[in-house]
Amino acid sequence: MKFSIERAALLKAVSQAQSVVERRNTIPILANVLIEAEGNEVQFRATDLDIEVVDKAPAMVERAGATTVSAVTLHEIVRKLPDGAQVTLSEDGAAGRLTVAAGRSNFNLATLPKEDFPVMASSEYQSNFSAPAPVLRRLFDKSKFAISTEETRYYLNGVYMHVAEGEDGRMLRCVATDGHRLARIDATLPEGAADMPGVIVPRKTVGELRKLLDDDELQVAVSVSETKVRFATPEITLTSKVIDGTFPDYTRVIPQGNTRKMEVDASDFAKAVDRVATVSSERSRAVKLALDEDRLVLSVNAPDSGAAEEELAVAYGDERLEIGFNAKYLLEIASQVDRENAVFLFNSAGDPTLMREGSDTSAVYVVMPMRV
Amino acid sequence: MKFSIERAALLKAVSQAQSVVERRNTIPILANVLIEAEGNEVQFRATDLDIEVVDKAPAMVERAGATTVSAVTLHEIVRKLPDGAQVTLSEDGAAGRLTVAAGRSNFNLATLPKEDFPVMASSEYQSNFSAPAPVLRRLFDKSKFAISTEETRYYLNGVYMHVAEGEDGRMLRCVATDGHRLARIDATLPEGAADMPGVIVPRKTVGELRKLLDDDELQVAVSVSETKVRFATPEITLTSKVIDGTFPDYTRVIPQGNTRKMEVDASDFAKAVDRVATVSSERSRAVKLALDEDRLVLSVNAPDSGAAEEELAVAYGDERLEIGFNAKYLLEIASQVDRENAVFLFNSAGDPTLMREGSDTSAVYVVMPMRV
Repeated sequence: MKFSIERAALLKAVSQAQSVVERRNTIPILANVLIEAEGNEVQFRATDLDIEVVDKAPAMVERAGATTVSAVTLHEIVRKLPDGAQVTLSEDGAAGRLTVAAGRSNFNLATLPKEDFPVMASSEYQSNFSAPAPVLRRLFDKSKFAISTEETRYYLNGVYMHVAEGEDGRMLRCVATDGHRLARIDATLPEGAADMPGVIVPRKTVGELRKLLDDDELQVAVSVSETKVRFATPEITLTSKVIDGTFPDYTRVIPQGNTRKMEVDASDFAKAVDRVATVSSERSRAVKLALDEDRLVLSVNAPDSGAAEEELAVAYGDERLEIGFNAKYLLEIASQVDRENAVFLFNSAGDPTLMREGSDTSAVYVVMPMRV
Repeated sequence: MKFSIERAALLKAVSQAQSVVERRNTIPILANVLIEAEGNEVQFRATDLDIEVVDKAPAMVERAGATTVSAVTLHEIVRKLPDGAQVTLSEDGAAGRLTVAAGRSNFNLATLPKEDFPVMASSEYQSNFSAPAPVLRRLFDKSKFAISTEETRYYLNGVYMHVAEGEDGRMLRCVATDGHRLARIDATLPEGAADMPGVIVPRKTVGELRKLLDDDELQVAVSVSETKVRFATPEITLTSKVIDGTFPDYTRVIPQGNTRKMEVDASDFAKAVDRVATVSSERSRAVKLALDEDRLVLSVNAPDSGAAEEELAVAYGDERLEIGFNAKYLLEIASQVDRENAVFLFNSAGDPTLMREGSDTSAVYVVMPMRV
């Protein structure tokens, strides 16, 4: 194998690969990236056995071939090479070494046989459709904060992507929850997605997927089966197992009858919550919201260290209400609001509260109250 | 006590105080800052019993007085207040609470009696002089990387500031070493500093001092006794115990007879060292320098993971030499060079190597070789 490639193209391809590789591996080859050169293209493949990423880059291939080297070392080397450098990678099969040369730098890296590299089995996908990058970005960006980190509830350790009946017909929907808060984000159902099975996309996959979605103009090819999901751009293909479990019926958690409506500037609200929470050093900082005619008083009382109180002007016309929340949860949902005001819908101090942006029902958040 | 103060002035004063406070304290009052209001000024005092910082800020004092509150909590609150806010701090002695009010925010913080706050005993200083901030900045910035972290060699856990006989007469000198590398930085001796006792300024004090030295126009008042050192600007006074030990005689470590001279662009050299070191995953990465007529070949050989080699054009006219160093040490000294080229003076592969900037002898670095 021998090929030349521009440093920037190589760096981009290897970056994505090395981020999938787990830092601590008991199986040595999982630390490596599989490099395959053929035609005028090179493929870089990395896996942790649950996720596989394949990144293609154009290259001048002098001699076709394949080998595997440490993804992290190769990434570090390429990162440190000067911008604009032309990099030549060549392998002499017999010696079991890959040479990386650029300018006056020469690296010689240990390889492992390409035959040992675990390539993910190909699957039949039940559903194939295409979605614009900004749509997928919104679906996952706005839901991922609610993913549970509790390993015993493994079926909550991801984003549930499925087709759901929304107010305006069938939607592509992402839901995540950890039992304390929930995010439900809808998008127009792409053509061909109607028969997609619902899948739980694992947290790590959501993180890796995010790197594919920066280009606003991009159409992403999505393929879904009962066990796998695949996202592909012209350069990168990300394949991931999905979580083998049943996502709980979240619909009954979303309150329908909450009528006490408070409207507030999301940024002012977040800053005030952040400030009053300062006096408490506990991990779960309870903030009390006391609502009265167009007036919200946020307060925290931490007997040891102190107390804090802040008043905010809000739109509220219902009867007096006092309700408590975890400050972190309030901050997280408030920071999802990027247009309009945050609209909170309360029922009573013991019931889940709903939040959305203005009158937009395509993104709703639910947060459980705390006793204060 | 009651006073009003501009948020920016309060933040600056409290920032410096909270950074001196240790995060984990067994003595509760050490987590607090002592606030003393009198005249048209407020003083903020914090200590870890080894270092004391006093920061003055102008304020509208309505009622003189003093109290102590958590430095970290007060800092967090002030940081989160909106820019431009006017902050009122007031204490009702009887209730044992400090109220912090700004706009519609109100905080109520637990206090501890001011009488319990350990104020550092004042000392007689043998030497008092004044030095420009940029001079002190250079002395400590260029030496601190070499401070030892080995606690058993406590007398190396700081920068040795003393008066020394330099090539051009008596100098103010800072030296730090960990036994593997050494930095010796000289500055013109300020008036009144000649009889200063040599003191070892602890690492933490060096870090805190750095924050006083950003203003190029500032003159810093320095006071030194056998046991303490004090740095004062118009706003901030930093007093610190010095390390009670004897700094070793470093002069015999600095090679005098090294004649093999290599001159190289410091940035190119650092980048090349960084690149070749990539292939080794060990903590102490040995880089080999092979020198020949105007040519340097840097190489690393890590049997497990690979090898790397890079050639650099240098000015070198002596006989062939091969010498090894810890890559991290080479990078650190090369990054001290800010003007001119790095000049290395070698003797043999087993002897300490000296580095300086061009022909400037006011900053010299020594690094021990490694067998490669």
